[in-house]
Amino acid sequence: MKKTLQHFIAAPDSAGIEALLRTAATYKQHPWVDGNLGRQRTLGLLFLNPSLRTRLSTQIAARHLGLDTIVFNVDKEGWALEFRDEVIMDGTTVEHIRDAAPVLGQYFDLLAVRTFPGLQDRESDYAETVLRAFMDHCGVPVISLESATLHPLQSLADTLTIREHFSASAKPKVVLAWGPHIKPLPQCVANSFAQWMCHWGQVELTIAHPEGYELAPEYTRGATITHDLQGAVRDADFIYVKNWSAWKDYGKIRCTDSGWMLQPEHLKENPSAKIMHCLPVRRNLEISSALLDSPRSLVQAQAGNRVWAAQAVIAGLLKNMQG
Amino acid sequence: MKKTLQHFIAAPDSAGIEALLRTAATYKQHPWVDGNLGRQRTLGLLFLNPSLRTRLSTQIAARHLGLDTIVFNVDKEGWALEFRDEVIMDGTTVEHIRDAAPVLGQYFDLLAVRTFPGLQDRESDYAETVLRAFMDHCGVPVISLESATLHPLQSLADTLTIREHFSASAKPKVVLAWGPHIKPLPQCVANSFAQWMCHWGQVELTIAHPEGYELAPEYTRGATITHDLQGAVRDADFIYVKNWSAWKDYGKIRCTDSGWMLQPEHLKENPSAKIMHCLPVRRNLEISSALLDSPRSLVQAQAGNRVWAAQAVIAGLLKNMQG
Amino acid sequence: MKKTLQHFIAAPDSAGIEALLRTAATYKQHPWVDGNLGRQRTLGLLFLNPSLRTRLSTQIAARHLGLDTIVFNVDKEGWALEFRDEVIMDGTTVEHIRDAAPVLGQYFDLLAVRTFPGLQDRESDYAETVLRAFMDHCGVPVISLESATLHPLQSLADTLTIREHFSASAKPKVVLAWGPHIKPLPQCVANSFAQWMCHWGQVELTIAHPEGYELAPEYTRGATITHDLQGAVRDADFIYVKNWSAWKDYGKIRCTDSGWMLQPEHLKENPSAKIMHCLPVRRNLEISSALLDSPRSLVQAQAGNRVWAAQAVIAGLLKNMQG
Repeated sequence: MKKTLQHFIAAPDSAGIEALLRTAATYKQHPWVDGNLGRQRTLGLLFLNPSLRTRLSTQIAARHLGLDTIVFNVDKEGWALEFRDEVIMDGTTVEHIRDAAPVLGQYFDLLAVRTFPGLQDRESDYAETVLRAFMDHCGVPVISLESATLHPLQSLADTLTIREHFSASAKPKVVLAWGPHIKPLPQCVANSFAQWMCHWGQVELTIAHPEGYELAPEYTRGATITHDLQGAVRDADFIYVKNWSAWKDYGKIRCTDSGWMLQPEHLKENPSAKIMHCLPVRRNLEISSALLDSPRSLVQAQAGNRVWAAQAVIAGLLKNMQG
Repeated sequence: MKKTLQHFIAAPDSAGIEALLRTAATYKQHPWVDGNLGRQRTLGLLFLNPSLRTRLSTQIAARHLGLDTIVFNVDKEGWALEFRDEVIMDGTTVEHIRDAAPVLGQYFDLLAVRTFPGLQDRESDYAETVLRAFMDHCGVPVISLESATLHPLQSLADTLTIREHFSASAKPKVVLAWGPHIKPLPQCVANSFAQWMCHWGQVELTIAHPEGYELAPEYTRGATITHDLQGAVRDADFIYVKNWSAWKDYGKIRCTDSGWMLQPEHLKENPSAKIMHCLPVRRNLEISSALLDSPRSLVQAQAGNRVWAAQAVIAGLLKNMQG
Repeated sequence: MKKTLQHFIAAPDSAGIEALLRTAATYKQHPWVDGNLGRQRTLGLLFLNPSLRTRLSTQIAARHLGLDTIVFNVDKEGWALEFRDEVIMDGTTVEHIRDAAPVLGQYFDLLAVRTFPGLQDRESDYAETVLRAFMDHCGVPVISLESATLHPLQSLADTLTIREHFSASAKPKVVLAWGPHIKPLPQCVANSFAQWMCHWGQVELTIAHPEGYELAPEYTRGATITHDLQGAVRDADFIYVKNWSAWKDYGKIRCTDSGWMLQPEHLKENPSAKIMHCLPVRRNLEISSALLDSPRSLVQAQAGNRVWAAQAVIAGLLKNMQG
């Protein structure tokens, strides 16, 4: 008999985060310790948008658990899905989510979905229309592989990386620093990182961004907001660089000032701060090569931790299904 | 030593259908009972056209049998194949089926192929030029994942679904009802469903369609043909809605009358009829949402049964190879 | 502890070739004899260009070794990679190889890469910029699935095929014969075949091509070069037909003379010569159908041997990693 459905689409509370971190750390030491947990089960990975790290790390993680995976690139191998109710489907969409999702729920034991925001209609994006439709209609646990507003598997890996690099006993200072980009990007990595840092409660979070780049307040409660990059990074322990487009003036680029690109000059007085980025990163646009190639950089550690983050989350859902 | 080659590309006779139904029903109860049947064998899944249910259900089915699968999207990951003999290949095709098919036959133990009709040249489509070329040249058993004229894995799942929902002792009345669409679709689901119902012999089949939508007579022998949708569905036990383009005026759309869209109004006097569709369905164009979302609908049962249909077929071919 | 990194991107020396041939021949007889060698390891297959035989044969080979594979079509599922150092990434490339490659090296135990030459800039192509970047930055053994200048897995399969068809005791005469094509193709199959034949030292290699089609001398040292196709094939034991574009006048088509298409007329006085081609082949353009469909043809044997070639190479790298 199925227990209450449990999804993974956002940060849990502080205790939940700690539990995931402990499990992830265990798997990092002993990848195959639960090698039969997913036996005779299959995880469907649905991509409505491209992916490299997320797809591969989730497949590797699933394999450590003996869980089979099937990747389906909906955009390329399938057809356009309809998410609006009660429309006459005489346009470009070929199948309604109400019909497609329950089929997938019959084929898969777990369903992981990646869907980007359109960045046109904030209300629809922030209602997580697409992800919610899968959750409402598929009937199995859903894992977000990045949704319109959040990217929890990334944030769990980021949190694990920070915990691994704690050196002092006091609360470390973490700065989420906006960086320039030529394209309007989603807010989801920034939203999600802020949410995880705030829920976790083990760090002091400062968010540095140009005017007009305020994130949705629901994710930044507890964080310090500043428009002074130099001031913010001066005594930072971790600096997470990331571009995002405006949330207020939704999906727009409001600043192209290259002064926001993090460079060694910003860190002359701070020799120990670690640099983070979720990748892919545009070198010498968001952040300088010199920093990415320096020993300060944790970007490869973050990417590597994606495997253990995914494995901890999948294992948790599998155990919940058995329990 | 290899036994006589056996393919799965159309309906077998009544006894063959019954045997497949029994096997499928067994696998539905005990998915892993033959978990070693496909050990150290690989099924190649070749897609010349997109697929969701067919691809995923076949992969899941193969896995239940311990059979490895490799998906190859010929159209996207490969290159254009040539099917005409003795041409000078100085155009857009890069490889001849006479060279490609035997290679695939060396790599795979079983080959499953999806290929849609061009809907331009009826003679070529109905000769199954593409599927036949694979069968002629690959040297291993071929499974149709939908071909130019038929879709036997779908029809086996449909037949299983009907058998599961028999309630009366008498022969149930099954109506294949044409529904409107904005695009010219193949006849293959309709051809195939009619073929399976007629071969099976356990139901009375009526086909309701507008004038000009006659199917190829070879598939409808034994069925009643009518142009009166309302009359046909009045006492139906199962109503299978599906669009197809004209076979006579080949590949053309001859009717756009929305009166052919099945709605609750059609079924006021028939509270128990079950509704079927192979999916993907365009809601409120082919059939109303109200019916698809009602307890009458068997569309999810059909989609779920795709797994057991595929598993029964693959198991049969594997056993034949061993025997 | 990791031993010195070992890649497979070109022909080894004569002893190395013989060792691979012996291993490949063993696997051909006993595919599953090392079925646990790749246990709990994963091979990443990265395609920057399309593939059929190479992808499928490598996946099948890996499976024989118990090695999991994940295919990633970088061009279609991912995004454009940047290979130039120190650029400001404000253009179309989304991720730098310096960031992407080490991530892949964390996820995979072995990395196989296919990348075609641009055929615009000979210096860059012949420096193997892309393949070298993966090797420099990923940190795990790299297998070439065909690179800008070479195709070693193909050549190993070709060498195995020739060895299997030795009939006389003397050194057989092998002719690499240029054939016409409508598109400018890479030189890599020709370079690579010449390199393997010359390193192997068990055959006499003649290369027949029109003027202007000289290959890079580093690959043809020891071979006889001629512009006389008829003369070259008269006493040949094996004739390997392949088109390539010019190396001197880089990437250009210099000859379209259909007299270079190998036909039965060329072989009236040579009834026993075997015909080879790596596939895909354009029939009746590069070589006549009559030859491809005759018992002289080894093209299917070559394609089949791709599996054993790949298996021997992967097994060698795995053993080196364990040792």
